[in-house]
Amino acid sequence: MAITVVGSVAFDSVETPAGRRERCLGGAATYFSLAASYFTDVRVIAVVGEDFGKRQEAVFQARNIDTRGIERAAGKSFFWEGSYLESLNEAKTHITDLNVFAAFEPKIPDFYRDSEFLFLANIDPVLQRRVRDAMPDVKLVAGDTMNYWIKDHRPALLEVLKGLDILLINDTETKMIAGNNNLVQAARAVMALGPKELVVKHGEYGATLFHAADPKAHSTTCFRAPAMPLEEVIDPTGAGDSFAGGFFGYLASQPEQSPEAYRRAMFYGSVMGSFACERFGTERLQQLTRAEIDERFNLFRELTHLA
Amino acid sequence: MAITVVGSVAFDSVETPAGRRERCLGGAATYFSLAASYFTDVRVIAVVGEDFGKRQEAVFQARNIDTRGIERAAGKSFFWEGSYLESLNEAKTHITDLNVFAAFEPKIPDFYRDSEFLFLANIDPVLQRRVRDAMPDVKLVAGDTMNYWIKDHRPALLEVLKGLDILLINDTETKMIAGNNNLVQAARAVMALGPKELVVKHGEYGATLFHAADPKAHSTTCFRAPAMPLEEVIDPTGAGDSFAGGFFGYLASQPEQSPEAYRRAMFYGSVMGSFACERFGTERLQQLTRAEIDERFNLFRELTHLA
Repeated sequence: MAITVVGSVAFDSVETPAGRRERCLGGAATYFSLAASYFTDVRVIAVVGEDFGKRQEAVFQARNIDTRGIERAAGKSFFWEGSYLESLNEAKTHITDLNVFAAFEPKIPDFYRDSEFLFLANIDPVLQRRVRDAMPDVKLVAGDTMNYWIKDHRPALLEVLKGLDILLINDTETKMIAGNNNLVQAARAVMALGPKELVVKHGEYGATLFHAADPKAHSTTCFRAPAMPLEEVIDPTGAGDSFAGGFFGYLASQPEQSPEAYRRAMFYGSVMGSFACERFGTERLQQLTRAEIDERFNLFRELTHLA
Repeated sequence: MAITVVGSVAFDSVETPAGRRERCLGGAATYFSLAASYFTDVRVIAVVGEDFGKRQEAVFQARNIDTRGIERAAGKSFFWEGSYLESLNEAKTHITDLNVFAAFEPKIPDFYRDSEFLFLANIDPVLQRRVRDAMPDVKLVAGDTMNYWIKDHRPALLEVLKGLDILLINDTETKMIAGNNNLVQAARAVMALGPKELVVKHGEYGATLFHAADPKAHSTTCFRAPAMPLEEVIDPTGAGDSFAGGFFGYLASQPEQSPEAYRRAMFYGSVMGSFACERFGTERLQQLTRAEIDERFNLFRELTHLA
C-alpha cells in the first residue's frame, strides 16, 4: 500500500571524522522515501528551489518514488550545514537556510489521495496538521518532530500528536515533550497526548516500541530492536529518517499491521538506519537490494536472539 | 561450579531522586556475589573493618555465600558516598574512604583453591593480578575495572588484562583503554590486550558481547542483550556488578561454556542488573527467587525476539 510523505527535500553540507561533503541531496523526506521505497510505493510532498535539477530528480526516479508532489519554487532549496566532529550521536548545526521552505504551502496531488499510509516528517507542525487534515481517509498516520518544535511550538505540536497513530522520536525529545526524565514514564505521558504507538530511537543502541494497549504491563507494551555496532560510521545524517522509512515502509507492505509486523518493522527500521550511516548522504540508500536488506535483517536477528 | 570473587565489601551512602540511604551494605564483591549466588556457589575474598557486624554477615549467610575469605581488620570498612541526582546513568562520588582496604593483602583460603571460576571485581589491578597468579588452575577468569585504574595505573592494568578470559566494562572504559572513540574498533583493540571475550555494558540500553574469534565478521562476533526499560529506577548502585554476577554465575552453572551459554549469560546479567536498580542497595538482590529471575529472563526474551 502506498505511503505519502510530506517533509523536507534539501541540500546538506556535512563534516564527519570521515571527511566532508558539500551540498549532498538530503532532507527528511528524501531519506524517508529512499528507505521506504525498498518496501512499498512512496509519494513525496515537498518544495524545492531552482537548484534542484535532473541529477537530484534522478535519485528519486531510480527508486520509482513519485515526485509529482514536489513543487518547484523560485529561489533556493532548503539548505543545512552541520558537523559530527565531537560526537557521532549528535549533529552540530552550523547553518539552516529554509529558503523556499519558508513559504511552503503543501498541496496534495489528487493522485496521492488514495494513499493508505501517511508520514509527516519533521517540519512545522502547522503544516503537518494541515496535510493530516487534508487526508482524512488514510489508514495509518506516523510522524516525527524535533526539539525546536517541542520547545517553541508546543500548541501546534500537540494538535499534530492528537492525529497520530505512531510517533517516532528520540530519547531526548520524548523526555522533553513529557517533562519527565524517566523514559517509561515519559513514553506513557507522550502516548496520552495521542499516539497509540511510540517509537523511541536510541541512536547506536537501537530503538524501543511502546504500545499504548496496557501501559502498566511491560511484557506486552515494549519491544526493543538493536542497532548494529558499526565498525565505521561515515555519516549519521538521515539515520533517524531512514529508520522511519524502513519501519513505516515495511508496515505498509504488510497485509495486516499485527504486533508481529510491528516487531519486524522495528528491525527493518534499524537495518535501514544502519545502512544510512555507512556512506555520506543518501549514497548507500540509493544502491541497496532487498536481498542485502534481508541479509542484514537476519544478522540483526542473529545479534539478539537466543537459540 | 564454584566462583571465587575478590573485591570490595563496603558501606555506601547514596542519594537518588527516590531518596537517601546511609551506610547500606555495598561494594562490588557484595553485589557480584549476591547476584551470582542464585546460580552457583560463591566464595568471597575481601577485607572489612570492625563496623562489619552480624547484620552484614547475615546477608551473605542467607544466600549461602562463603565468607571465610573475608578478613577482619582493625579500623573501618571501605566507605563510599555518592549521588545520582542529575543523572541515573552516572554516579557523582562525594567520598571514597578506602579505610581497611588501603592495606589489603588478599589471602586465598585453601578451601577456595578448587574454585574453577575466578572473578576479579574492580580493585587495584596489582591486587587483581596477585589473586589471579595465586589461582593458576582456574578454568575461566573474568574481571572488571574503572576509569581511575585506566588513567593512572595503566601498566598494572595491562598485566591484568593479559590474564583475563572475559573483561566486563562500560562504553566509556572501553573507549578509554583503547584510545578510540568507535566502539567496535575500541573493543577489538581491548581484546588484543588479552581478553578473549569483552562485555561492554551500556547501562539502560543493555550490553554487547564481543567475541575475539573472528573480529571482522560482525555476525559471529557480537551479541547484544537488552536492558528492560524500568518504570522507576530507585538506586542504580551495583547494577554493573550485579550484571557481572548474573552473567558469570550463569556461565559457571553450565556444564559447558558454549556460545549459546554466553548468550543466555548476557540475558541473565541484564536481568540481575535490572533487579538491582529496583530497591536501594542490595535489598532487591537479597530477596529474589530463581522463579522470579527466570520470569524476567522470559520477559527479556519477549522484549527482543521476533516470532
